[in-house]
This record gives sequence, C-alpha cells and structure tokens, in this order.
Amino acid sequence: MDDGVVAQTETGMSELGHLGQARFSGISTFMRASYVPDADGVEIALAGLPYDFQGGRGSARLGPAQIREMSGLIRPQSFNLVAPFEMCRVADVGNAVVNPMNPRESIDLATEFVAGLAAKGAAVVSAGGDHGVTYSAVKGLVQGKDPISLVHFDAHPDSYDDPYGGYIHHGNAIRAAVEGGYVDPSRAVSVGIHGTRFFGSDRDWHRDHGMRLLTIDDVADLGVAETVAEIRRIVGDGPTYVTFDIDVLDTPYAVGTGAPEPGGLTMREALGILRGLHGLDIIGGDVMEVAPPFDPSGHTALCAANIMFEILCGTALAYAEKRDGQ
Amino acid sequence: MDDGVVAQTETGMSELGHLGQARFSGISTFMRASYVPDADGVEIALAGLPYDFQGGRGSARLGPAQIREMSGLIRPQSFNLVAPFEMCRVADVGNAVVNPMNPRESIDLATEFVAGLAAKGAAVVSAGGDHGVTYSAVKGLVQGKDPISLVHFDAHPDSYDDPYGGYIHHGNAIRAAVEGGYVDPSRAVSVGIHGTRFFGSDRDWHRDHGMRLLTIDDVADLGVAETVAEIRRIVGDGPTYVTFDIDVLDTPYAVGTGAPEPGGLTMREALGILRGLHGLDIIGGDVMEVAPPFDPSGHTALCAANIMFEILCGTALAYAEKRDGQ
Amino acid sequence: MDDGVVAQTETGMSELGHLGQARFSGISTFMRASYVPDADGVEIALAGLPYDFQGGRGSARLGPAQIREMSGLIRPQSFNLVAPFEMCRVADVGNAVVNPMNPRESIDLATEFVAGLAAKGAAVVSAGGDHGVTYSAVKGLVQGKDPISLVHFDAHPDSYDDPYGGYIHHGNAIRAAVEGGYVDPSRAVSVGIHGTRFFGSDRDWHRDHGMRLLTIDDVADLGVAETVAEIRRIVGDGPTYVTFDIDVLDTPYAVGTGAPEPGGLTMREALGILRGLHGLDIIGGDVMEVAPPFDPSGHTALCAANIMFEILCGTALAYAEKRDGQ
Amino acid sequence: MDDGVVAQTETGMSELGHLGQARFSGISTFMRASYVPDADGVEIALAGLPYDFQGGRGSARLGPAQIREMSGLIRPQSFNLVAPFEMCRVADVGNAVVNPMNPRESIDLATEFVAGLAAKGAAVVSAGGDHGVTYSAVKGLVQGKDPISLVHFDAHPDSYDDPYGGYIHHGNAIRAAVEGGYVDPSRAVSVGIHGTRFFGSDRDWHRDHGMRLLTIDDVADLGVAETVAEIRRIVGDGPTYVTFDIDVLDTPYAVGTGAPEPGGLTMREALGILRGLHGLDIIGGDVMEVAPPFDPSGHTALCAANIMFEILCGTALAYAEKRDGQ
Amino acid sequence: MDDGVVAQTETGMSELGHLGQARFSGISTFMRASYVPDADGVEIALAGLPYDFQGGRGSARLGPAQIREMSGLIRPQSFNLVAPFEMCRVADVGNAVVNPMNPRESIDLATEFVAGLAAKGAAVVSAGGDHGVTYSAVKGLVQGKDPISLVHFDAHPDSYDDPYGGYIHHGNAIRAAVEGGYVDPSRAVSVGIHGTRFFGSDRDWHRDHGMRLLTIDDVADLGVAETVAEIRRIVGDGPTYVTFDIDVLDTPYAVGTGAPEPGGLTMREALGILRGLHGLDIIGGDVMEVAPPFDPSGHTALCAANIMFEILCGTALAYAEKRDGQ
Amino acid sequence: MDDGVVAQTETGMSELGHLGQARFSGISTFMRASYVPDADGVEIALAGLPYDFQGGRGSARLGPAQIREMSGLIRPQSFNLVAPFEMCRVADVGNAVVNPMNPRESIDLATEFVAGLAAKGAAVVSAGGDHGVTYSAVKGLVQGKDPISLVHFDAHPDSYDDPYGGYIHHGNAIRAAVEGGYVDPSRAVSVGIHGTRFFGSDRDWHRDHGMRLLTIDDVADLGVAETVAEIRRIVGDGPTYVTFDIDVLDTPYAVGTGAPEPGGLTMREALGILRGLHGLDIIGGDVMEVAPPFDPSGHTALCAANIMFEILCGTALAYAEKRDGQ
Repeated sequence: MDDGVVAQTETGMSELGHLGQARFSGISTFMRASYVPDADGVEIALAGLPYDFQGGRGSARLGPAQIREMSGLIRPQSFNLVAPFEMCRVADVGNAVVNPMNPRESIDLATEFVAGLAAKGAAVVSAGGDHGVTYSAVKGLVQGKDPISLVHFDAHPDSYDDPYGGYIHHGNAIRAAVEGGYVDPSRAVSVGIHGTRFFGSDRDWHRDHGMRLLTIDDVADLGVAETVAEIRRIVGDGPTYVTFDIDVLDTPYAVGTGAPEPGGLTMREALGILRGLHGLDIIGGDVMEVAPPFDPSGHTALCAANIMFEILCGTALAYAEKRDGQ
Repeated sequence: MDDGVVAQTETGMSELGHLGQARFSGISTFMRASYVPDADGVEIALAGLPYDFQGGRGSARLGPAQIREMSGLIRPQSFNLVAPFEMCRVADVGNAVVNPMNPRESIDLATEFVAGLAAKGAAVVSAGGDHGVTYSAVKGLVQGKDPISLVHFDAHPDSYDDPYGGYIHHGNAIRAAVEGGYVDPSRAVSVGIHGTRFFGSDRDWHRDHGMRLLTIDDVADLGVAETVAEIRRIVGDGPTYVTFDIDVLDTPYAVGTGAPEPGGLTMREALGILRGLHGLDIIGGDVMEVAPPFDPSGHTALCAANIMFEILCGTALAYAEKRDGQ
Repeated sequence: MDDGVVAQTETGMSELGHLGQARFSGISTFMRASYVPDADGVEIALAGLPYDFQGGRGSARLGPAQIREMSGLIRPQSFNLVAPFEMCRVADVGNAVVNPMNPRESIDLATEFVAGLAAKGAAVVSAGGDHGVTYSAVKGLVQGKDPISLVHFDAHPDSYDDPYGGYIHHGNAIRAAVEGGYVDPSRAVSVGIHGTRFFGSDRDWHRDHGMRLLTIDDVADLGVAETVAEIRRIVGDGPTYVTFDIDVLDTPYAVGTGAPEPGGLTMREALGILRGLHGLDIIGGDVMEVAPPFDPSGHTALCAANIMFEILCGTALAYAEKRDGQ
Repeated sequence: MDDGVVAQTETGMSELGHLGQARFSGISTFMRASYVPDADGVEIALAGLPYDFQGGRGSARLGPAQIREMSGLIRPQSFNLVAPFEMCRVADVGNAVVNPMNPRESIDLATEFVAGLAAKGAAVVSAGGDHGVTYSAVKGLVQGKDPISLVHFDAHPDSYDDPYGGYIHHGNAIRAAVEGGYVDPSRAVSVGIHGTRFFGSDRDWHRDHGMRLLTIDDVADLGVAETVAEIRRIVGDGPTYVTFDIDVLDTPYAVGTGAPEPGGLTMREALGILRGLHGLDIIGGDVMEVAPPFDPSGHTALCAANIMFEILCGTALAYAEKRDGQ
Repeated sequence: MDDGVVAQTETGMSELGHLGQARFSGISTFMRASYVPDADGVEIALAGLPYDFQGGRGSARLGPAQIREMSGLIRPQSFNLVAPFEMCRVADVGNAVVNPMNPRESIDLATEFVAGLAAKGAAVVSAGGDHGVTYSAVKGLVQGKDPISLVHFDAHPDSYDDPYGGYIHHGNAIRAAVEGGYVDPSRAVSVGIHGTRFFGSDRDWHRDHGMRLLTIDDVADLGVAETVAEIRRIVGDGPTYVTFDIDVLDTPYAVGTGAPEPGGLTMREALGILRGLHGLDIIGGDVMEVAPPFDPSGHTALCAANIMFEILCGTALAYAEKRDGQ
Repeated sequence: MDDGVVAQTETGMSELGHLGQARFSGISTFMRASYVPDADGVEIALAGLPYDFQGGRGSARLGPAQIREMSGLIRPQSFNLVAPFEMCRVADVGNAVVNPMNPRESIDLATEFVAGLAAKGAAVVSAGGDHGVTYSAVKGLVQGKDPISLVHFDAHPDSYDDPYGGYIHHGNAIRAAVEGGYVDPSRAVSVGIHGTRFFGSDRDWHRDHGMRLLTIDDVADLGVAETVAEIRRIVGDGPTYVTFDIDVLDTPYAVGTGAPEPGGLTMREALGILRGLHGLDIIGGDVMEVAPPFDPSGHTALCAANIMFEILCGTALAYAEKRDGQ
C-alpha cells in the first residue's frame, strides 16, 4: 500500500510543491518538487538535459519527462531517513534547450545551462539524455576550477575512440571529461562494467590514464560494503560527481534503455552502494540513458527516479554540511 | 514529419511557456502553455480535475497527466487557423486537490477549484477525471447565474438513477447538472450515444426533461454539417458549455477509457462538429474519461488533447469577442 | 461513463449470473452469464472452442478467455433494444476440450462438443479458436440434417487447397463445411473479402460452387442497407449460421489477430450489417481468430465480444420466435 | 517446456475443475479449481475481494480476474510436493460484491462475505483488491474469537494515520486489524519493509504496539533460513494469517502494483520464506495490490498466483492436519 | 484465416526468397523477397534508409527493421491482382549505411546508396527513416536528369524554414527536393494535409512555388475517385515519385510515428488512391516515419508494409511496361 | 552508452556481415553475422528452428525472428574476451522449413535441416522454437555416432510421458533424445529445475535412467563455481551439447515464454555457469522457448541472444581447438 498524502513538509522552497497532495494532483515535476524555472534561491537544482545522439536505439532525450512522471511515486524521505527537502531548498528548474540537429551545439547549450545554475550557487542533480550529458554537466559545474572526483556507474567504459568524426557523445563522455581537465582520473572509478565488448582493448584507456574500473564480477566478489569502501578510497575527500548510467543495472530494471546488458547490478546493490557514498563531498550527479519508448510501463524510469533521489540525498547532505558551517 | 521548433509566440502569457523549444524541452503542461498556479491574469485556465469513482475499469484520475504529456504534440494554431495563445492569455493552472476516499468531498473540492478560477475572470477548459468532473466544472462556473446551454458528447446518456446510495458521479453528472439548475435541458443535447444498454428505459430521462439526444445513427444519417446545424439550433446564443466524454469516439481512438463502445465517432467527425461550434458563446468545456493505464501508448490522450485544443479554440474565440468589445 | 451496476435481470437462468453486480465482481464468463457446464436447461449456449493450428502468428486458442474477460463490458440489452437474457435462458457452458498436438482429433472433439449441446436443444454461439472451429460448429449443429445457409464475414475466402497434407483448418473450413454437405453454397455468402492474395485463382472455388463473395469494395459501393438486402436475398428463410472472422474488420479493430488486413470493415458497418440480419432464422454463430497475445489491451477481444453479442441477439430472436409458437 | 495436460486429480471437489485439460480449456478460476459459488462442502475457499480506494495509481480491484487468468499456469503440486487439491476440497467461490462508491460499505460487504465462508467451515485464501481487503478478511475470519498471529509481507508498514477522514484502507489496514482486536501485535511481524518514506516516524506505531518489523536489510542480513526462524519464533503455534502485499517484491516482479518500490524481495526469497512457514497453524491468507492495467503481460499476477498457491499449500497442510486428527 | 504457405512463385529472382514457406521461415526481408545485397540483376530494389534527426519523438531509423518483419504478412499478389514478383526481379538490397552523429553526411550517404542502385538499372522502393530520406531517394534517382513529378502523402507540408541552422531534414525535405531541382513543383502535389499548425503561413511555400496541396478536407470532399483524377491531372505522364509519410494516416493506423495527427486518411482511402495511380510512370517511392518503439504491436509498420507493397505494384507495372517494349 | 559502430572484424566470413555498421543498418541476422543460406564454407552455423506445438501459451515458432532482431545489440567479443567471429567462419544460415499442421513431419524436417548442416562440417548453434527442437538438433548432429553428453538448462525436467498420443514434443524431447540413443544419460544433467509440478513422480525418469538433476535449490546451495564443477564432472571430456530453455531463468528475464516459473536463475548466474563450460568439447547448442508475443519489448529475446552468444563462444573455442590441431 501507499498513502499518497503527506503532511506538508515544513521548510523552505518545497512548500511550493505539491508533496502535500495526492500524487495525481499537480503537474509533473521531479519528485513533485516546486517548479522554479529561474532557479532563484535554489540550493539544489533538479534539471533535465534532454539530448541524445545514439547510434543505437536511442530516445534518451525523452527521459526527463518520464522520470519526472514516475518520480511522483517517491516519498520525501529516504529509507535511511535522509530528508533532502527539509535540509535544502530543492526545486525543479526545467530542462536545457538543445538543438536536435546539432550534437556539438547541444553539448554547448547544456553546458551553459548547468553553468548558469552553478553560477547561482546551486548544486545540480540532472536526468538525461544520453551519457553525453555527463560531459556537459561536469564541465558546467567544474570549468575554471580544479578537476574533481568521479563515481561512474555504467555497463560500458565510455572511453571509446570516436568513430563518427570527432564528436563528444555517449560513447566517450567520460574520457572527454577527463581529457578536458574536469575530472581527475586518479580519483575516478567506473563501477559495474559488464556485457559483450567491441574490442579486447576497450579498457586500455582506463588503465593508461590511471582510472579504476570495477567490473560486475569485481562488485559481486567484493560485496556491497567492500565495493563502497573501495570507491571511497579512490575518490577521497574532494568534490565528487556521481554519474549513473541506467544500463549498469541488470536488464529487468532497465528494459527502457538504448544498450541493455543482462547481468548487471540489482537495485538492492545499487541503492546499497549509493547510500554508502553519503558523507562524501557530492557536488552533483546525474542519471541517464532512460529511453521511455522502450519501457512504456515506466519501470526503468521509476528505478532511475529512485537512483536520482539517492543522489539528491547525498548531494543534500554535502550541501547542508558545507552551508551550515562545520 | 514535424518540426518541433517554432518561433516564440508573440503575445501575452504564453511567452512564459516553452512553445518556442523542442517538444522534449520544458516540463509537461497542457499544450506547453505556461504554468501559472495562482491563475493571476489568466483569461483561459487549462486545468486538471483528477478524480474518478468508477464501478468499472476506471483510473481516469490519472488522465490529466497523460493528456498534458501528449498535448506537447499540439502546435499553437488550429487546422483552420484559430490561434488561441495569440488571442488570449492562456495558462495551465494545475490540478484540483481531491480526497480519493470521499466522492462527495471530491465533487465539492473540484467545484470550489473551478469557482475560484471563475472568480478571477477565467474561462475554464479542463481535463478529467471521470464524467463526474463535468458536474463540478459546470456548477463551479454557473452557480448563482442562469442555467446554461450544454453540448454533451458521449456514448452513454449519463442520466441513470444512482444505484450506490445517492452519489453524484460519472453515471448521472449530466442529469445532476440539469437537476441542480446549472443547465437548461431545453438548450442541451447529448451527441453520439451508442453501445449496449442497461435498460430499455435509459433514454427516458432525456425525453421527460426535454433534453435532446442524437445517437450515432442520427449523426451518421445527418452528416457533420447537419449535425452541427441541429446542435446550434438547440443550444442557441446563450452561454454554452461543451463536455466531451472520450468514449463517444470509436474504440480505435479510445482504447484508454473505462467503458469503450465500438461504433462511435471518428476523429474526423468529432473535429468537424467541434469546429462547427465556433462562434457560439462557449464559456468553457472539458474532455474526460481518459484512463491512461489502458493505453500506455498515449493515443487516447493524444485524441483528447486535440479535442481539448479545439474546445480551447472555441472558448478563445468567444472570450476574445466578448472582451474586445462587440 | 458507464454504470457497472444494473438491476438483476428478471428471467430464467441469467439470474444465476452476476449481471447485477459491478463488473469486477464474479468470475469471467461470456457477458457475465451464468456458468452452467452441463448445459441442462440452457436454450442458448455460449461456448469456447479453443484450438488453432496456424501457419502464421496464431494463438487464437487463447481467444475465448480474453473475449470472456472483455465481454464483461457488454450490457444486457443491445443498442436497438434486443434483450437476449430476458428472452432466452442463456448460459456460458465452458470450452471444448481439444488435443493440442493433433488437429484432426481437435476438430472431432469440438464437433462432438457442439453436437452434445445441440442434442440438449441449445443453440450455440461460440468463440474461437481459429477459423477451423467453424467447421466443427457447423457440423456439430447440422450433421444428419439438411445443409444450411451461411453468412461468412472474413478478409479471406477460406476456400484454399490445403498445402499441408489433407487437413481441415482455418484456410479451408468454409470449403470443407460446404463439401461436407453442411452448408448449401447457393445460400451462402462471404462478406468483406479484402487484402493481398496468394493466387489470382483464390476466388475460383466460390465461383465454381455458386457461393457469393462480396468484397470490401462491393460493401463500400452498396452501403450497409443494400449489403444487408443482398445478404438476405442470398440466404433466404432457412436455418442460417453466422461466422465472423475478426480479420474482416479494419486493422485498428483487429490488431490482435493472426492475419490482419488493412482496409476492412469498420465496427459501425459490421454492427449495422449484423443488426440487419435480425429476423433471419439464425441457429447459431461464432466469432474467431482473436489472438490475445498480439493485443494485450483487449481491444480486439472487445470488438469480438460486441460482435458475439449481436449474433446472440439475432439467435435469441430466432430461438424465441420458434419456441413461442408463431 | 510445460505439458499442460495432467491426469485428473484423484480426490474431492477438484475433480469438478479442469485441471485435467489443456490450460486454455475451461473458464478462468483460481488455479483451475472448480467454481462453487455457494461454497457448500468447500474446505478451502479461494476468493476474490475486488475493491480498492487508492490515493495513488490504484486499480487493484481488477486484480482477482488477472490472478485467476495467470494462475492457469500453476500445476497441482508445489515444488516441494505439497498437493493441496489432493489434501482438501478446494474451490473457487467467486468474488465478494462491493460498492465502488463507498469504502466503508465495501469493507463491511467483504467482511460479511468472508465471515459467511468461515461460517461454512472453510478456510479462506483470497486475492485482492488493495490492502484494505486484509482488514475484511481477518475480521471476517476472526471476529468473536481470540486475536490471531499475523505474518505481513509488505514494502510499507501500513500503520499510517488516516489523512482522509477516518477510513480503514490500504494505508492502515494492518493497524486497524490490530486495534480492532483481531490480531495480537505481539505475535505479528511485518517483513520486507523498504522504499522511500513519508515520515521518519512511520515505524513508531509498530514499536509502540510491540509488533515486529523486519526491513529488507534485516532479511538480507539474516538470510532466508534465519528469517523463517525469526518469524516462526514471533508468531508461535497459534492460528496465523499470512498477508502478502505484492509490493514487497522487487519491482521487476511487481511492475503491476500501485506503489512499486525498487529493492524488495526476490521471488526466490519470497518462496523460500513462505515454504518455511509450512507447519504453522495457517488459517488463511491473501495476496493483493496487483494492479493489472500497469502490467498487461500478467507477470505480476503470475507471481501473485504462485504466492497464493504457496499460501494455499500452507493452509491445506494445517487444515488437513486439524481435520485428520493429529 | 491466412494460409501462410504458397506455391513457389514462378519467375526470376524471387525464387531465391522464402515466399514458398510458412511465414516464420527464413530471415526477415521486405515481403519475404530474396536478399541480394549487391543488387546485381535486380530490377526493383527494396531498400532501407535508416536515419532520423527529429526534434520530436523520433526513432524512425528503426523503421526498416519493423517494416521488414511485418511485411512477412503480405502475400505476393495485390487485391486487384498485380503480381510484382512475377513481373520483375524484385529483391531486398539491405540498408544504407549512415552516420548517426552527422545529419549532412547521412543525407549524402543515403543519396549515394540510392544513386548506386539506380546506376545498376534498378527502380528503388524504400522504407525510412524520417522524411529526410525522401530528399536522398529523389536526388539519388534523379540527379543529372530532368525534374520529376511527385505525389506526396503527408499530414504536414514539409516545406518549413529550417530553424536549426541550414539542415535538410524531415521538415523541409520536399521543399529541398524542389529547390534542388529534382522535383518540378508544377507537377507535384501534397495530399492529405491535416492537423494543428505552427504558423498560418505554413502553406505559403506551396502556393508561391505552384505546388498543389490537397488537405484532408479536400480529399473528403472529392472522394477517392476524384482525388485520384486530380492527382493524375497534376502529375501527368512523366516520371513520378511517390512518397508516403505514414502520418498522413489517421492515428489509429499510425500510433507508431513521431508526429501523429488525428483525423487523417483511412487505409481504405489510402489504398484506393494508391491503386488509382497505377499506370503512371512511377519510378520509385518510399514510405517512412514509422517509429517502432511507439507501436511495438507492429500495426503501424503493417500498414506501412501494405502501402510499400502498393507502391511496389505501381512501380512494377511501370517498370515492366517500359522494359517490355511499347 | 553503446557505440554501435565497430571496426570491421578482420577475418573470414563475418566480413560479409554488417558488424561494422550502426546497428540499424543491414537486415536482421543472428548477431549481425553474414547470411549464407547455402552454408558453404561455414564452420559454425547459426540457425532458426521455428516450430512449436504447445499445449500452453506457445508461439515459440516466432522466436528466431525476435532473437535475430535483439541480437543486433550483441558486440563481437564476449565479456571475457572470446571472439568467435575472429576464431571461426560464423554465419546465419536461415531457418528450417516446417509443416505447421504436422508435429511429426516438422520434427523430421528440422532434423534433416540440422543433419544437412552437419554434413557440411558445420557446428550448429540454433534458436527455437519450443523444446522439441532440441530433439531435432541433437539427432541431426549425432545420428550414426555415439551418444553425447548433454547440459540441459530448464525449469522443467522435460521427461514426461506423452499424454497426446505418442508425439515427441517440448515435454519429452530430452527423454526422447536419450531413448533414441543420441544422448548418454550418465553424462547428462538437467540444471535449474524449479516451479510447481504436475506429479510427485516427475523426476523419476531421471533417477531411473541415471541422469542427474540439479534443482534451483541445488544451484543456490552450490553457488556458480561449484555448480560448474559438478556439471563438468558429469559431462566429462566427450562431445557435449548445451540446450538452454529460456524458462530456466527467473521470470523477470523470461516474461516472453510459454511456461514462466518464478524463482529461476538470474542472468548473472546463467552467464557465469555458461562461461564455466568453456573448454568442454561443445559441438553445438540451442536456446529456445522464447515466445515473442508475450514480450514485445524483446527483453526475453535479448537474454536469449546473450545466452546464444555465450554458447557460440564455447562452441567456437572447441571448434577452433579441434581445427587448429592439437
């Protein structure tokens, strides 16, 4: 069962939202947060980055809408009692505008959108879009600052050479973020790599740049607790970004994605690992590669919404801690 | 093909919306209109009335969300060049709050919501919800004034005796609106009645109260033009409400409804009739009984969105004509 | 809207059913009729004939279950006020047992099942199964008597040579029923033939045996009223069977069938023609080729249920007329 | 592979059913048991309790029909060789009648329905409906007797305060069953609690009333065997009811429910725990919150049918043991 | 019913295909034609042009695969007995290779692919892809020759200004084909235009360039026969290309497209018009904008396959007539 | 993310395929391998065996087409770097032709098809079809030679007595393969047996013939590594066939099958076990019982494609080892 009606939350901006109503009341925003398109006063911005340029099945540009819809099923506190809407002023700031014919312009437009939010002091937790959005999000948050740590959940290493003619996209966004100087590879890790492979050499870039890679077998062998410990050891105390490609999940959780790979993480494992990252200096994150047309049931988007909420919780803990002194 | 990008519309409130962006940009509002939850300055309010209490398959309370989503495919001008967003300040004002356990309270809450919009000077074009919403919408607009004319599209007469214990609901809302004094039955007409029947006597209420009833056979025999002429003759020049139960459509257009009835109107017929009502003094209207879980493709909601847009066009024409003098 | 609760019907066996309850009450029977597996005292038996042996997409053996489920949306009186449950003792008698590995044995088992019902004095209105069931149903009703008239709705002529080795099946059931002496081809007609063709010669059997064939173009040219007149002229006053292959309908009504053919009858046309057959001496009929896995929405089955109900109405009119003297 | 044809079972009432036929033969009853609407002579009644009043996505009132359909895939013996149809006279007794407009009356109608079955000596294993049915089922079985033990599988504690105005419903049915004196909280346990939360205080009612709560983390830490041992320690030897909210399962098993929560039990875990309860004095149970429109594939209902079968096995073991002396 | 097995066709290349087998035999090619990737000796090439760059819902690049699959339901002769596989050597030549990141390069690659087929003497009937493929197909067939006639079925005029920065795409392909000198606008016509509009000026380009435009209202007023006559009068005797955007169809036939518009052509109308074009000098054609993820049932693709087959019939008639002398 | 474009593989026959293109390029073959219908020069033939005769929900004859489609998502190397297309000449050879009305003839036709491939020196990895195909595949590969070892993944033992009249089919194919002398039961094992049961005696045949049976509980207790060791101990060094009934998987991976059984293997377990079989003398294998109409999303077929790829890897390792000397 599920109640659907809660008392109004007590603080800040979220009182503008419709958390206090039945779920089918109100328009569809991320987790039923307030819609604040100008982002004024927002401490954590929930944003959509709707572009995709996939060589595969694609359609991830439609992801933010479905994740918003399914996120109406999220309640305001996490299982382990983090209450982001009470801790910070959280709002849905809408989507970036992109150019559907032009990948490079879209990357730039999304980067500017995130940079604009950052300039207002907001942390940004976003929903893609394909994995290219991570390049935009990281660059938008980091440019002009020191490279940051990265926790990268994915079935694929996303560090391929580009075969299309020099584009930044879902197949090389992680690599581009490192090579652009926004991520420090020695404090970065790819988690949950699995599935069939184009080349035997597809993990060489990671090795050559000193970026760790934990396969699904590594995670299975380590267990959740040790995986968390290993990730924390790698990323350290510095500012950290969390990017979660939904295809890292086992396919029953991610039918609605472009490149589903059987044998991935369960949601119990994924939620366990994400909760284990609480306390890190998480400055933002994203969930992406949700392709709604392939899962009209919304189940994939529901999982993505829960992942996004956990990233929000981690971000809110870090934001509040820094804001409130310590 | 479909462009997806339009020049920004030029007037009023809709510039706040995202009509000028690709369709997957922005949050989901009715026809990508601006979201103005307080309705200040709004001339035509697009609203969701999300309740249902069906004895059948139900789920129409989830209709406004899916109609919003699919209405993103609507462009800002109608086929015959009515441009409501240029003529009036149109906005999405969100949904009424209801009590999902209590039908009577929900009816009252929705009525107050519509009355509040009317008090601000807005015409109201809404999306249900089940057909009970029409009672709330009409009462909210009319109470304290003279009874109005009604054009009622439906497969069912909706004038049944209530077998549940004295409730107003989707089976008797039209009757209740007449008996409550909000609709003048001599200027009202039910259009498109078809399908199997509970009782041989199920059209007696109409006959006894002088309310016309055009069956699907009548419409087929008359053709669109004569049907329009007949409806216009019945409703006359006075203030008129248009209620469109999606189940009046033939089932290929309305898989996603509680009580689909094969053999109904085609969309070509429905759009033709609605366009024929332009010039009437339409003060508002609704489309309802869209039950998204039964049509995850959104096709039913897409039809509903197009119907809602045509009602909006008719309402905008009347609103602007009254506002601009004459 | 749709009420879902009706007063108990007043006569005979159907009071055992659950027509007087909300639709989700009770188990799933054809049109919520009583379930009377021994058929004692039943005047019109609603039966499932669940077998298919298709070279194509198949699965019609699962049709009766889905037609039962969707037929819960049917109300007890037809649009033109025929009330079969008041006129006759109508019951669901369950399904024939078949051998899923053996087409010939299945044909025989279904024939015996229908013959057993006929021996108890029941008219039989059945749901398939593939079109092979019609051979069983007609043979079960007619064997030992004179050949009957036949109204055959179908996209395909179903009079092909068998390429598989001498089987009776969905591709030749009509031909087999004629050649077995159960149907008089001079009083039989195939209605609504359309779609692409295997051979240019595929209508020769009809011509050579004096069985009429009205293509979709013929029906469109004639219109519903003249089509009805033509059919009545052909079949005459004698005992008549009505078989309705769901693929005669245009594909939006029949996504859930093995061999959908765009460009078929609309439900408005189909219902009009079937109602035009009232008054004929209809001794039974069937609807078949509903393949549920291809239309999980149940829309195809809903159309089939409405067709089955109209055939039931025609059968009840004939049954009562003969029973009540005159 | 799956055979689909079995020898007729050898005892009692189930010989009336169609277990001995291919699965698509016969009408749709729970596990293809006989349909015995008057319940005479029935030892274990399989019943539908079709009501829901959800503030969320709802539609669980349609659950019994889909669970019946999918339960046709169940074979007559469990994996560990419990054969309920051979041990007891098991029959499908149909559904309770409810009032879809009136939650309170529906609760009472369902309670009377179950009480009537109990008065005939039947144990009752039911399918909902939403979790409110558990209140009806427990009250119907227990009223006038001592409070019983309860094993409650759920993602949610279902002991919320009612925000709607004093209703018993899916959000507080467990609490209401305790407060009504039908369940002894000291011998009751909620198992598998997980997902996001409305309030930090949402487990206080359990603590304050001495009712145990095992979260998904507890179950994961304990493992199946220790979880079973813990449950058995809590509920003891007395009469015990088992209620299984399908949303306790991980979402890939339960797409078709109102409030899916990623990270729940796997079916391997759930079946393991349920089998571990064999030997307890199980007097009945239920499975509910299956919302068919959200999973037209029937997968959720298939899982529910397997769960219902395991509860039936446990109930049959207890029933036969008491009946046969012991 | 549908047979699924036909005698082997008697001529030419199609004997390599699997038309003589049950439909689920063989790999999936257009209409079960032979797969001849080098196109040697092919007279009519069936090709896939798999690219899309939509600002909307997109995914039309996946269209060829689903159209191939559903085209297995097509039989080798048309309703009016055109037998293209007997008249010409018809083969599936596979798909063009495109660059999913680069619209301009993709347009060029598809153009070269078609030009290469034309250079081998093949007429080309293709499946998109989005409407941009038509530019490639027409340019590939025509470049270096005189402008041709065009019959353009579409809901949208596809002659918009490009808002993205000078691309050729689905919104301006028709215009680009005219402006590139491949189509003579005075012998071209857009048929079936309907739906809501971006601008009041969106038909001005047609008017200014002397290209006719028949709206859905025009078609409805004229009827099929007069529409055919009007089209034939416009395009005349010269080489003619037929492009069929699936969104010209009414939405029940075209749920699976990017920009569905209620109120379009029925398949009966569309097939009637296409058959009326037989005898024109049709040198090729295409069907496109089928977006499979939005219609997993394949119904939209089935309609597209039937349309493609009718275009193939018209092309084969013209090809054979020219080849065989006269 | 997923790249979709790879460099052309470097050896042998697969250069004819379209592995070097975006996934939506080219026709649909198993893993985008070349289509070589005459199998000349093919070392490992990928084949479809499209027949089913199920007493249940069936439709597995449609499996090869959907597995082909979804296998386009497979990349050319396995997770643990086996590269079958580089090691052997692998091609798709199309489907066997069957007689959809005649089970016995279909079994024979499929046997001859496989035997023909074997006669050309090809190992055969096939996709069903129902489990009856395994009898054909094993007989086609083995007849005239010594009995082989068998690894049989399945929810069901498939050694039932036939209740239909002496047919070989999906319920007894394993038993028939043993009793026909093609499999040595002492070197054979059924893995993953779970789900409800027809009879308590349904494992007796295994025991009586000395064929091992590892239930899902056995696998769970042993873990993947020990399960692998146990299987290897049983099958030994001789020629081994691997048959994988998709229903051995837990139902979230196998919604699209005829007899889904909750509580089966996860894909992580299944892939782990299959990879553990590398190094055995695998002469071929199959995956079957994928019923596409029950999972239009293709998720079940995607899992099957991954399983098929792992079997291909094992087969290629063995084939190359034998070919290359040693």
